[in-house]
Amino acid sequence: MIGEIIAIGNELTSGRVLNTTSRFAAGLLYGAGHEIISMATIGDTPADITKTLLRAIKRSDFIIVTGGLGATSDDMTSEVVGQALGRPAVYHPDIFAKIKARHSKADKETVEPLKKLAMLPRGAEILNPEAKMAGYLLVHDSKPIFFLPGVPHEMQQLIVDKVIPRLSVWQEGGTKLIKQKVYKVFGLGETEINRLVAHLEEVEDDRIRIGYYPVFPEVHLSLAVTSEDKAFIKNIFENLEEEIQNALGDFLFGRDDDTMESIVGEILQKQGKMLATAESCSGGLIGHKITSVSGSSNYFAGGVIAYSNDLKAKLLGVDAGILAKYGAVSSPVAKAMADGIRAKTSADIGLSVTGIAGPTGGTQEKPVGTVFIGLSTPVETVDFAFRFSGDRWQVQEITAVTALDLTRRHLLRKGMNYTHSINKN
Amino acid sequence: MIGEIIAIGNELTSGRVLNTTSRFAAGLLYGAGHEIISMATIGDTPADITKTLLRAIKRSDFIIVTGGLGATSDDMTSEVVGQALGRPAVYHPDIFAKIKARHSKADKETVEPLKKLAMLPRGAEILNPEAKMAGYLLVHDSKPIFFLPGVPHEMQQLIVDKVIPRLSVWQEGGTKLIKQKVYKVFGLGETEINRLVAHLEEVEDDRIRIGYYPVFPEVHLSLAVTSEDKAFIKNIFENLEEEIQNALGDFLFGRDDDTMESIVGEILQKQGKMLATAESCSGGLIGHKITSVSGSSNYFAGGVIAYSNDLKAKLLGVDAGILAKYGAVSSPVAKAMADGIRAKTSADIGLSVTGIAGPTGGTQEKPVGTVFIGLSTPVETVDFAFRFSGDRWQVQEITAVTALDLTRRHLLRKGMNYTHSINKN
Repeated sequence: MIGEIIAIGNELTSGRVLNTTSRFAAGLLYGAGHEIISMATIGDTPADITKTLLRAIKRSDFIIVTGGLGATSDDMTSEVVGQALGRPAVYHPDIFAKIKARHSKADKETVEPLKKLAMLPRGAEILNPEAKMAGYLLVHDSKPIFFLPGVPHEMQQLIVDKVIPRLSVWQEGGTKLIKQKVYKVFGLGETEINRLVAHLEEVEDDRIRIGYYPVFPEVHLSLAVTSEDKAFIKNIFENLEEEIQNALGDFLFGRDDDTMESIVGEILQKQGKMLATAESCSGGLIGHKITSVSGSSNYFAGGVIAYSNDLKAKLLGVDAGILAKYGAVSSPVAKAMADGIRAKTSADIGLSVTGIAGPTGGTQEKPVGTVFIGLSTPVETVDFAFRFSGDRWQVQEITAVTALDLTRRHLLRKGMNYTHSINKN
Repeated sequence: MIGEIIAIGNELTSGRVLNTTSRFAAGLLYGAGHEIISMATIGDTPADITKTLLRAIKRSDFIIVTGGLGATSDDMTSEVVGQALGRPAVYHPDIFAKIKARHSKADKETVEPLKKLAMLPRGAEILNPEAKMAGYLLVHDSKPIFFLPGVPHEMQQLIVDKVIPRLSVWQEGGTKLIKQKVYKVFGLGETEINRLVAHLEEVEDDRIRIGYYPVFPEVHLSLAVTSEDKAFIKNIFENLEEEIQNALGDFLFGRDDDTMESIVGEILQKQGKMLATAESCSGGLIGHKITSVSGSSNYFAGGVIAYSNDLKAKLLGVDAGILAKYGAVSSPVAKAMADGIRAKTSADIGLSVTGIAGPTGGTQEKPVGTVFIGLSTPVETVDFAFRFSGDRWQVQEITAVTALDLTRRHLLRKGMNYTHSINKN
């Protein structure tokens, strides 16, 4: 089915808040075989809400509306929609009873304004009777319109549990299927990847779409096949999957929901190895990435954020002479940090980072973006030098992902030679 | 002026990539006094691009189009726009010469496809002759349409340096001004804040808008005043600013571009104090937040990510007996970690976190979300217990921000009593 998503909120059109919910919704719906032709973001303005909704009803099979369902005075979705569709608000005493029960300790002044949450357009069917904020379905001109709270995880749950099952019942007859797979690449630029897989695009077939999307510091390649024929889709994926893999080689690190940190975690777990980190310019970002994965305590011992020289000496045992002679941002210090954290923690692999994230602190010899990454194992200690470009956030981000990728390559005994996209000294 | 933003890319409508650029653009334009009535996100589909663009030209004073300007085969913005507006592509040899110069070492196969970057609709005025990817301006029906690369920092630069100055020249006569200020709150829920400032909303004046936006784990209050009268805007802000401050008290931690970590940094710097961290369940996130601020080495010594019990003992000197008796997630261990990191680093403040981020690892006595935060100073060592709810990401995020907020409150000698939104044990 063809659908569209309308996100409502002045916080979105004024740029104050990033609209993450529409993307969540689009991804889930796309995965379920639907096509999103438009994602509109508009302010809490009655005329705009009305116009956008009526246009969507005309051209789409279903609509998802998020935001503006709260109790504060600027939330007006239900009221405006009721007027636009000729469905005056109906009071739902059961909803308000539940709200009151949850606020049993609060005074009347707090509870009374929440009555607004129980006023829904006529014909609204509540999708989540158990939740704090009602999501509901209106059927208008025989088309389903889903009104969902803008809070990302509540909305995500509703899409998975209610919206997608409802839409699959709605849909009759000729079902168009979409299958999409994402191949994640690190260390190659968009144009290089384009060239490596160019021969796959020569097939002139509207049902097969290949796209390249830089998601800093990675590039994602997407393969999407649309057809009513399941066997065709399966066949295409079997053939192209291997070709993509061959074309991208070691630079292909994961698929779909994989992240660099989840892949490194999987390999560590499989090999029964423990990792420990010693971070300077990345300031804890590598540890944060690793521990964002549930179960990471199985393979991550922890580490040291050695932001000052003093801590590099005190907590990692880096020799003061080396620090003085070569400077904190240097190959010998990267190696000593990696050795130091491995010795202190008895981990199998010590991973270290020292560099200049900027925007200040650069010198002629060592400009902003200069980063040394060290890797210490019982067999050897190696280090790699990089000169990254970008702002502070970008230098920290690419430093952390590069450090993880070097760990991945070490564990898989792959080569460490990146192409020009990372300037190896 | 009234404008809209159109973001183009299948990676956006399929939900694979989050559209951050439209929000950037909206924020910058809003700040410059323009109003964005719509942010549309559509796929790389000629018919949708054409329809959306023509509708925007009809109803808006200016348009920003981002994405689809690259060299890969799925990028088609320039071509489609040329057709839609009757402006066939014109070849710009100067652009291609620069591209060739940048790829002097690359072979012909790499360079030839980049010729596409030099084919722009007739009448295009290049905005950034020095950049890798051209952003350009088309004037159609006397309205400016800006085509900008989708890469966030390139686009941001172009909006600031080129788009906003151009728009201000465009605009003649009666200029409507918008001033917006954001007040950032931590530790109070949206409804509580709404109630605290409800009296400010009683002024019935269309020119004044107050909004409440949860940006997990914070809530932001926005005050926007629209008028042609500069003095009126100034006056309103002078009056309301103080009232908002009084209503929100210690829970108001910052304004506009402030973040919790930038505010804590400013106070530490002002007081000449050094902070060090000992993180368990937050896995480096506190360190990452602090070091995302440039200049943080002035007040952040570093820390230890003591993810395993072993590291809590080895690197922080937490007594093995205490760990065995109370468990790693406990008040005595939080205190010992805070004392330990302060002793090891000679910092003025030791900040520690130990808890269960989930989704596994919880027990009946200590369910997922149980977190102890310790704060050690030369005068005393205190700790705070929390039971947060949410998924792993949310628990880690609110843990880190709470730890920073406790540091802020300690430094400012404010009370530590949060309301019910954080469940203090």
